[in-house]
Amino acid sequence: MARPERRTMRDVRRNNQAMLLRTLYFAGPASRLELTGLTGLSAATVSSMTGDLLGENIIIGAGQVDSDGGRPRALLRVNPLYGYAIGVDVSETHVRVELFDLAMHERAKVEYVLRPARHDPELVARHILAGVDVVLSDAGVPPEQVLGVGVGVPGIVERGDGGLIHARSFGWDGVPLAALLRAGTSLPLHVENGAKAMAQAELWFGSGRGTGNAVIVLIGAGVGATVVAEGATLHGVTRSAGEWGHTKIVVGGRPCRCGGRGCLEAYIGAEAILERAGAPTHTAGWQEELAGVLASDSPVVAETLTYLGVGLANLINLLNPEQIVVGGWVGHLLGERLLPAVRAAVAENSLAQPYAATSIVLGNLGPDAVALGAATLVLEEFLSAAPAARMTAAV
Amino acid sequence: MARPERRTMRDVRRNNQAMLLRTLYFAGPASRLELTGLTGLSAATVSSMTGDLLGENIIIGAGQVDSDGGRPRALLRVNPLYGYAIGVDVSETHVRVELFDLAMHERAKVEYVLRPARHDPELVARHILAGVDVVLSDAGVPPEQVLGVGVGVPGIVERGDGGLIHARSFGWDGVPLAALLRAGTSLPLHVENGAKAMAQAELWFGSGRGTGNAVIVLIGAGVGATVVAEGATLHGVTRSAGEWGHTKIVVGGRPCRCGGRGCLEAYIGAEAILERAGAPTHTAGWQEELAGVLASDSPVVAETLTYLGVGLANLINLLNPEQIVVGGWVGHLLGERLLPAVRAAVAENSLAQPYAATSIVLGNLGPDAVALGAATLVLEEFLSAAPAARMTAAV
Repeated sequence: MARPERRTMRDVRRNNQAMLLRTLYFAGPASRLELTGLTGLSAATVSSMTGDLLGENIIIGAGQVDSDGGRPRALLRVNPLYGYAIGVDVSETHVRVELFDLAMHERAKVEYVLRPARHDPELVARHILAGVDVVLSDAGVPPEQVLGVGVGVPGIVERGDGGLIHARSFGWDGVPLAALLRAGTSLPLHVENGAKAMAQAELWFGSGRGTGNAVIVLIGAGVGATVVAEGATLHGVTRSAGEWGHTKIVVGGRPCRCGGRGCLEAYIGAEAILERAGAPTHTAGWQEELAGVLASDSPVVAETLTYLGVGLANLINLLNPEQIVVGGWVGHLLGERLLPAVRAAVAENSLAQPYAATSIVLGNLGPDAVALGAATLVLEEFLSAAPAARMTAAV
Repeated sequence: MARPERRTMRDVRRNNQAMLLRTLYFAGPASRLELTGLTGLSAATVSSMTGDLLGENIIIGAGQVDSDGGRPRALLRVNPLYGYAIGVDVSETHVRVELFDLAMHERAKVEYVLRPARHDPELVARHILAGVDVVLSDAGVPPEQVLGVGVGVPGIVERGDGGLIHARSFGWDGVPLAALLRAGTSLPLHVENGAKAMAQAELWFGSGRGTGNAVIVLIGAGVGATVVAEGATLHGVTRSAGEWGHTKIVVGGRPCRCGGRGCLEAYIGAEAILERAGAPTHTAGWQEELAGVLASDSPVVAETLTYLGVGLANLINLLNPEQIVVGGWVGHLLGERLLPAVRAAVAENSLAQPYAATSIVLGNLGPDAVALGAATLVLEEFLSAAPAARMTAAV
């Protein structure tokens, strides 16, 4: 049971206004009449709220449709140029900065390559700040039109204003990235784990769309999972939920870079697969190297499928999701060729009843969805806040 | 982000009314003035709603307190005798039926022993129906005063009216227990997995009280877990979430009665511990037998702690809970003597950051909390429904 919560009439109006905006965003263009049907709001409320949103240029006209015998009806939609969102993907190999309009169309993009072991926080922050300037200038967008900057990073992002980041693969232990960025920009910032940001994009625009109970797994150099339960993302008490890669599947098994043994990541992460195949890791061409291993008849392929099957089956047995979306570059390499074999390995290791309820699909935003996911954090804020409140704050 | 949801003024009143009742239940006795502070509702609303609830005898006076210089203030509380809840614990060894008043005080109790492998659904249903008659007659409570019967069963309970039960340990595969019971009683029924029912009781009245992110684990003959995220219990898409006992911790390891290999239950379930110690299982005295093993210096004890540590660490890494409550009869045997050693094994197998955020405690309702948990399902319904709607339905 949810905790007691009081709702005032003002909350009701705000809630309804945000709902109207979300409905127009995801289901629009729509006429006022269609909006009353989609939202359950009265015609008078829809008329008053759309009037406000039109006045603020947040929504715009989108042509007309004929109505039976009556006047043609005006269609409305969210104004894709009302504002912009910047998404940043900080990974082991690069810092990528992308500018999106509110329809999440990419308007500009820049990438900085990180040399191995050059993950100095100040350097990463400088790349991000420079990238923000570059994409805005390339697209001719003034900073005032940017609603915020979303940054996807590896590791655990602590809750709270500090947003300290713990990313072992970077050697980051409590890095205040948001504070470093605030020294160079006054744009609203949203720092989040990259896997969770990508999961958000898959949930809204990709394979997970419309699913209330899902797990989005990211398999790359690192391995993580985002759990969505009853429509809400599970963050955990200190926002570190999702460390699926460090759940143990072999007590006392292979050593993992986390310091533990037998972690799932030590079997299905990029490094682990290459090591078990006797191939070099962390080279410039390791993505091609890994693709080669997975396309071969090496016994490592079958082993990897078994380990992945166990890892996914554990999620199914514990969480009973409707859908599992497999993403990340290793996930895509595995899934594109071997999804039926992955499914078979999962079936062998999960209980029949929850297995039957779960579909396992490949993320359809591709392996590079972290920047889009990070920008989605900005969009989420835009669609959640009551427009009136937001406008006041923005002035 | 939660899905769009429309709230009408009537919803607001219902929501507030249910909140007022829950507040009085968990925080009462309280005066009307205190209730305005606790709920945030206006004095006029509190006065009108408490008037309605008093009129229906759902709440009653509970004495007075002096107020500074003014008239003494009347205290209110939920009427513990407004109605009764019956809780049923169906386990491998018995069917136990208990009658509770709304303060969750036990008023009567009866137990039927099940012989091994005598888990015929009709027999279980007959025991439950007989037990309901016995506790009502023992306590002198007429059936009209019973708000419902909660039944905790092993295994997976399917969502929906049928409420089919899949319990491998019983040989139940799609048993329509609710339908069997409906043939013999017209009381409202709530059938739920016993581990989840117990978890509900620990969350409301036991060790988990006040925790929004928690996992309640049950370790007995079977092994399960209930995940609570942001205050809500995670059920999964077909209500089978929580099969923690069948997550794999040793790929290709010990065979489990589910047909798989390397399941956590195959290492820490009652049967598994006894088998590994070379002791007989499923005897009349196996609880004493197991207590003896765990009190000995057998290497099985240390092994069991390691396996349990890995199982709990996997929950911490994946879900980042604030608290883990260990329950069930094996859980109590392990925890009462060995909790510090359990904690050490967890620390060794989890990431430092989420481990530091989690407290691991023993359930304080004891190993027999399933019947209380099942009765709590009835209480939950009572406290969730708007009293006006409930009263109409009851007529």
